[in-house]
Amino acid sequence: MSKPQMTLAEVADLVGAELRGDPAVRVSGIATLKSAGEGDISFLSNSRYERYLQETKATAVLVTQELAEQCPVSALVLADPYRGFALLSHQFDPEPRPAAGIHASAVVAEDAEIAPTASIGANAVIAEKARIGANVTVGSGSFVGARSQIGEGSVLAANVSVYHDVHIGARCRISSGAAIGSDGFGYAHAGTHWERIAQIGGVQIGDDVDVGANTCIDRGALDDTVIGNGVKLDNMIQISHNVVIGENTIMAGHSGVAGSTHVGRNCVFGGAAVVSGHLEIGDNIHLTGMAMVTRSLKEPGIYSSGTGVEPNRNWRRNVVRFRQLDDMAQRLKTLEKKLSE
Amino acid sequence: MSKPQMTLAEVADLVGAELRGDPAVRVSGIATLKSAGEGDISFLSNSRYERYLQETKATAVLVTQELAEQCPVSALVLADPYRGFALLSHQFDPEPRPAAGIHASAVVAEDAEIAPTASIGANAVIAEKARIGANVTVGSGSFVGARSQIGEGSVLAANVSVYHDVHIGARCRISSGAAIGSDGFGYAHAGTHWERIAQIGGVQIGDDVDVGANTCIDRGALDDTVIGNGVKLDNMIQISHNVVIGENTIMAGHSGVAGSTHVGRNCVFGGAAVVSGHLEIGDNIHLTGMAMVTRSLKEPGIYSSGTGVEPNRNWRRNVVRFRQLDDMAQRLKTLEKKLSE
Amino acid sequence: MSKPQMTLAEVADLVGAELRGDPAVRVSGIATLKSAGEGDISFLSNSRYERYLQETKATAVLVTQELAEQCPVSALVLADPYRGFALLSHQFDPEPRPAAGIHASAVVAEDAEIAPTASIGANAVIAEKARIGANVTVGSGSFVGARSQIGEGSVLAANVSVYHDVHIGARCRISSGAAIGSDGFGYAHAGTHWERIAQIGGVQIGDDVDVGANTCIDRGALDDTVIGNGVKLDNMIQISHNVVIGENTIMAGHSGVAGSTHVGRNCVFGGAAVVSGHLEIGDNIHLTGMAMVTRSLKEPGIYSSGTGVEPNRNWRRNVVRFRQLDDMAQRLKTLEKKLSE
Repeated sequence: MSKPQMTLAEVADLVGAELRGDPAVRVSGIATLKSAGEGDISFLSNSRYERYLQETKATAVLVTQELAEQCPVSALVLADPYRGFALLSHQFDPEPRPAAGIHASAVVAEDAEIAPTASIGANAVIAEKARIGANVTVGSGSFVGARSQIGEGSVLAANVSVYHDVHIGARCRISSGAAIGSDGFGYAHAGTHWERIAQIGGVQIGDDVDVGANTCIDRGALDDTVIGNGVKLDNMIQISHNVVIGENTIMAGHSGVAGSTHVGRNCVFGGAAVVSGHLEIGDNIHLTGMAMVTRSLKEPGIYSSGTGVEPNRNWRRNVVRFRQLDDMAQRLKTLEKKLSE
Repeated sequence: MSKPQMTLAEVADLVGAELRGDPAVRVSGIATLKSAGEGDISFLSNSRYERYLQETKATAVLVTQELAEQCPVSALVLADPYRGFALLSHQFDPEPRPAAGIHASAVVAEDAEIAPTASIGANAVIAEKARIGANVTVGSGSFVGARSQIGEGSVLAANVSVYHDVHIGARCRISSGAAIGSDGFGYAHAGTHWERIAQIGGVQIGDDVDVGANTCIDRGALDDTVIGNGVKLDNMIQISHNVVIGENTIMAGHSGVAGSTHVGRNCVFGGAAVVSGHLEIGDNIHLTGMAMVTRSLKEPGIYSSGTGVEPNRNWRRNVVRFRQLDDMAQRLKTLEKKLSE
Repeated sequence: MSKPQMTLAEVADLVGAELRGDPAVRVSGIATLKSAGEGDISFLSNSRYERYLQETKATAVLVTQELAEQCPVSALVLADPYRGFALLSHQFDPEPRPAAGIHASAVVAEDAEIAPTASIGANAVIAEKARIGANVTVGSGSFVGARSQIGEGSVLAANVSVYHDVHIGARCRISSGAAIGSDGFGYAHAGTHWERIAQIGGVQIGDDVDVGANTCIDRGALDDTVIGNGVKLDNMIQISHNVVIGENTIMAGHSGVAGSTHVGRNCVFGGAAVVSGHLEIGDNIHLTGMAMVTRSLKEPGIYSSGTGVEPNRNWRRNVVRFRQLDDMAQRLKTLEKKLSE
């Protein structure tokens, strides 16, 4: 791959920065202050890394007004260097952009609609009446089920499974191994065994949604499972049937939401946070990692559960006491009464 | 897809209900009381939804004897409307039923046995001596390893991986990304490194077993890993080598069972419940979500662990105290002694 | 498959044992003391199973010096029978070894380099400039992205996804559904939405690394994610961007390490243990299952968190008290003061 090149003028234009340096100078890579070399652009967004600014070998640095004076090399001055870095990062992304067209080894149903600008990878399979939008990439070995739709500019990595009747919006990224539209986990207890309930609903995914590797979004039982615009899901997340996730909510790896729970907008879930079914989680709720949520939460704020890690020897003693906690509380009350008498 | 149609007489016959209405009327969809329209059938199984019965626009409703009087439309009266719904749901399932036969792009070993009524999807791969039973569906991109068997009527979705020497029973459903027969996690410590132990056992899966998306069932070290008839596994569950799961046990997403543990019949695991290795879990054990089980459980009942979610500010204080819990217990004892003196 | 056969002389030679028995006798299988039959070899490494030695039907047993006297059949005497079993197990592994060569249905980029002794499975896809080493197996339906390298003797099972710019060392085993090089979870908050940061780094995996089924190793944001030699990862593990895992660390299923955390050598993670981001975990740290680590750990030892499972009725009471724990601690202090006055 030939290295991408940008002039500092182009960089300033892209990120909306004021350039203090030679606009014709070129950069061909992006790196941290510490590891950047000649030809790289870098950024300073966290005061922890301020000490690396003086000695950076970067050709140019995205900085705030306050720190621009201290920048020993060309400075691109803007209010939010981290966001500037986010915008710029895509210019140096080595991710291959496959050519438009349907690979000879792909299997596409006759009545599927594939936009001429879409790329269907090797050994991918597109089922009946599926619709693949403009500039979509369907990675090698991925499957798109009957009547499902992939919106403009979305990217499915290799080995993604999209079941039937799933609607994915524009500019989404679906990582390898993700399963979208898999069966919801619904059974009726029938005395001695469990009777499966056909999962008839679909999945609706908005625009600008990212779905991490091996994440599972189940189809609805009767109505659809719904993921709002701008939602970002990390790897191995479980979204159960008929869950609704509000716009711009972001969830870290291994987290999960059980059936029919509604999660609001702008929520942040730490890793392995788990929410029970049939609950209402409001907007702007922040769950720390491994939080266990078994009741609805309406008040915005940070919520936590669990105990912190400690040496096993101590923990063993405390964990025994946890099982005596109610008893301890009652004994404490008794003592207080006695003493107050 | 043309919409399925049933007369109410056919519905009554299928679910074993007494019909109060015109047997010739037709329904072509199934929906909740609230969202049902003309031509839909619905059901009332939860008293929470009783208030929607009066105003439902459904053409007919599955109800109990007690509520049949209040049903403003045709009523199908039966003891367990939810189970009736489960049975009926399959009539309206839009899941495609692929035609029998081997897709031209599938790769099938010469000595594999494929029933003429089985469907082998696009780009699927069937290895040496595998046996695919009658009416089995192997989804696009799925792999069935050497000598493995898939029983009559079972369905593998797209991109499923079945390793060698795995036996799957009849009427099972294996969701996308599931890995069955992957290596058990077995190593001998060899001073400075870990020596892998070949995982020589296979996997035995009974009839009517569901395996969720991206769930992993490891092959046994020497003997087999065994999943009983009627077991239902949700997504991303870990079943380790030589685990045995009893009949009709049901496990929610992200739960896991470590090596050589035996789980009884009719157990219910909440999401992310984790059981350590080499334990015995009896029949009818119910674990709530995120339960951490490090000892055998024999007495039937509901078991739990963990702490409930609370505002982070409070939690931070309590979590510090948890680490002082044993100390607190001893101070409490001291106080009690002093006071009794 | 024809059964492998070894003489006891060959076994003794392979595992470095002293043979007490007929060197010409042949074994064709390996099994536990309890289930072994005629022609099987077995081992005794755990005193719990000593009682099975007397009645074993095995043809020969790997034992320690101390127990060799009690062995009723041919004995192979060595210091560590479990390690001997590990070494020997591979002789009886029924895992198919595919023939060298590129399957006709595989899709290989013209400028990819495939060693003549490598095996590329049915419907596998190898992208531009990828390099597949000697004796490598790429399983059916697996994908190897642009410029990625698979070292000598490594095995990718079916349906593995290796993204671009991933380097995998020699003798690694990657299980089905694993995703290596997927996007790190990196976003800049941009007022009303999240701006994705392109994940430009790659993944470096050492030699003798095992990656479990459906495990995800994300690519680095700018620098690489790094997995040391001899690391063993179980199923569904989350390794986030820019994590570094030291040599011979072993992690059980469902565990996870958040972004930029460094884990030392020879660590052991129990199942579902989760470590937060930007931490330092030293060498020889042992986390028990479901441990929640939110601070750096330097001192070698065993660490734990959480509470143990108990009957739900008791737990409900204790969990309420947990939320009053800080209050209880302060009341206890008050009582102590009063009493000492």
